Amino acid sequence: MSKFSEIGAQDIISTAAELADAARLATLQHFRSDGLTADNKESLRFDPVTVADRLSEERMRAILARRRPHDGILGEEFAPVAGTSGLTWVLDPIDGTRGYLSGTPTWGVLISVRDAQGVIYGVIDQPYIQERFEGGLGRAEVNGPMGRRVLRTRAARPLSEAILFSTFPEVGTAEEGAAFRRVAPKAKLVRYGMDCYAYGLIAAGQIDLVIEAGLQAYDVQAPIAVIEAAGGIVTDWSGRPCLNGGRVLAAANAEIHAEALALLNS
Amino acid sequence: MSKFSEIGAQDIISTAAELADAARLATLQHFRSDGLTADNKESLRFDPVTVADRLSEERMRAILARRRPHDGILGEEFAPVAGTSGLTWVLDPIDGTRGYLSGTPTWGVLISVRDAQGVIYGVIDQPYIQERFEGGLGRAEVNGPMGRRVLRTRAARPLSEAILFSTFPEVGTAEEGAAFRRVAPKAKLVRYGMDCYAYGLIAAGQIDLVIEAGLQAYDVQAPIAVIEAAGGIVTDWSGRPCLNGGRVLAAANAEIHAEALALLNS
Repeated sequence: MSKFSEIGAQDIISTAAELADAARLATLQHFRSDGLTADNKESLRFDPVTVADRLSEERMRAILARRRPHDGILGEEFAPVAGTSGLTWVLDPIDGTRGYLSGTPTWGVLISVRDAQGVIYGVIDQPYIQERFEGGLGRAEVNGPMGRRVLRTRAARPLSEAILFSTFPEVGTAEEGAAFRRVAPKAKLVRYGMDCYAYGLIAAGQIDLVIEAGLQAYDVQAPIAVIEAAGGIVTDWSGRPCLNGGRVLAAANAEIHAEALALLNS
Repeated sequence: MSKFSEIGAQDIISTAAELADAARLATLQHFRSDGLTADNKESLRFDPVTVADRLSEERMRAILARRRPHDGILGEEFAPVAGTSGLTWVLDPIDGTRGYLSGTPTWGVLISVRDAQGVIYGVIDQPYIQERFEGGLGRAEVNGPMGRRVLRTRAARPLSEAILFSTFPEVGTAEEGAAFRRVAPKAKLVRYGMDCYAYGLIAAGQIDLVIEAGLQAYDVQAPIAVIEAAGGIVTDWSGRPCLNGGRVLAAANAEIHAEALALLNS
């Protein structure tokens, strides 16, 4: 944060809030409506793209064009925009489109800002619950149905006492699924189906681990910012930074991260 | 509903609302708090019972003792109360205690009323989202973040276009898991982890099927009332009534129910 003036940080934070507010409206406009259309972007994996997904990103890009014309943009739905400021906004207008299509309150809008070194600020917003997790630039908090609270990850505990989440039990490829299943049976509790909301739950001190694979940069950068600001650790399955996605191991603390990492690679 | 006067029905509905309001406060009082205690009721399955679970049911029972002293009570946490009115309130103060312990917005409070013939009214309440699904006595509606809406299940579509939910991928015994896996690969989308919220999603026309096993009476009666009021069907895996729980097949319509039932028994 040292390189940003207080005013610079405040403008990033308030811009992100405006983006999240706009995306909240855009996504709820179509949430749980009849006749939601869905295209298959890939023929092998079911990955619907909805009207709401595009509308949400268009609205966010319009705000950035007005407020932050010198920053770059990397978003899920449209072509990247090169910037000159050294900052890039990374946008996932609906993370968890399958959850969105099913009506679950587990999908979210992911917004983050990175520089050459890494992610400096991120937001995970769940529009239906009206709950927003944010982290970076000195902030680590959630604002939702129970008001505003500081985010702080759980204290260390053995994997046998830990709660592990992943979005779906197959996790990824056969090899990735096998690695996941070296960890999962040793956890106290394994749950599925939470999409990006699971990363918010790590930051909020509710769960210990999220293990996923096949993620994109826009899927993981906001969670990295939020979880690290709350005291957690997010790496790939080799313990290296995972800014560009891929295989992700998000952990509440160094101890549980090390225990899960060892099993993933055992 | 014919046997109830309008006044009788209104008192049941307003009593249920008072119960749900009280349970909402009791459960949120401990939700996402540090140091939540959890006992294991059974040694083999992980089934935590929290302070909130007992508090929620105690508050509901106190309201029933005052407002409906002649009705019976069947609740998860305390001994049954015999009634003389012919009506029994069936209470699950926190359905989805594992979701509750994990901080997910998927658990709920289940409240229903039955007579000798079956369930006449039910409520599925999600306190954190502040969303309430209700069905029976002429009502079928949800009141939540997007206001009050009529509940209506989805129109028929083939299983290959349908969305199927279950709380966890193992489903139940090995035999029950095998039956589930005769259906799941044929669905368009399978998701896990929603606890009782999945039944609300059927009633709201968002998903097509929920298949679960090992349920208790208090897990299933409120979902039956809500889904049937919205136009859906809930039976056991033999197509018979499942008021007492066990293996449950909840479906948006007769066509998808028949298709799933045939596969479960193939």
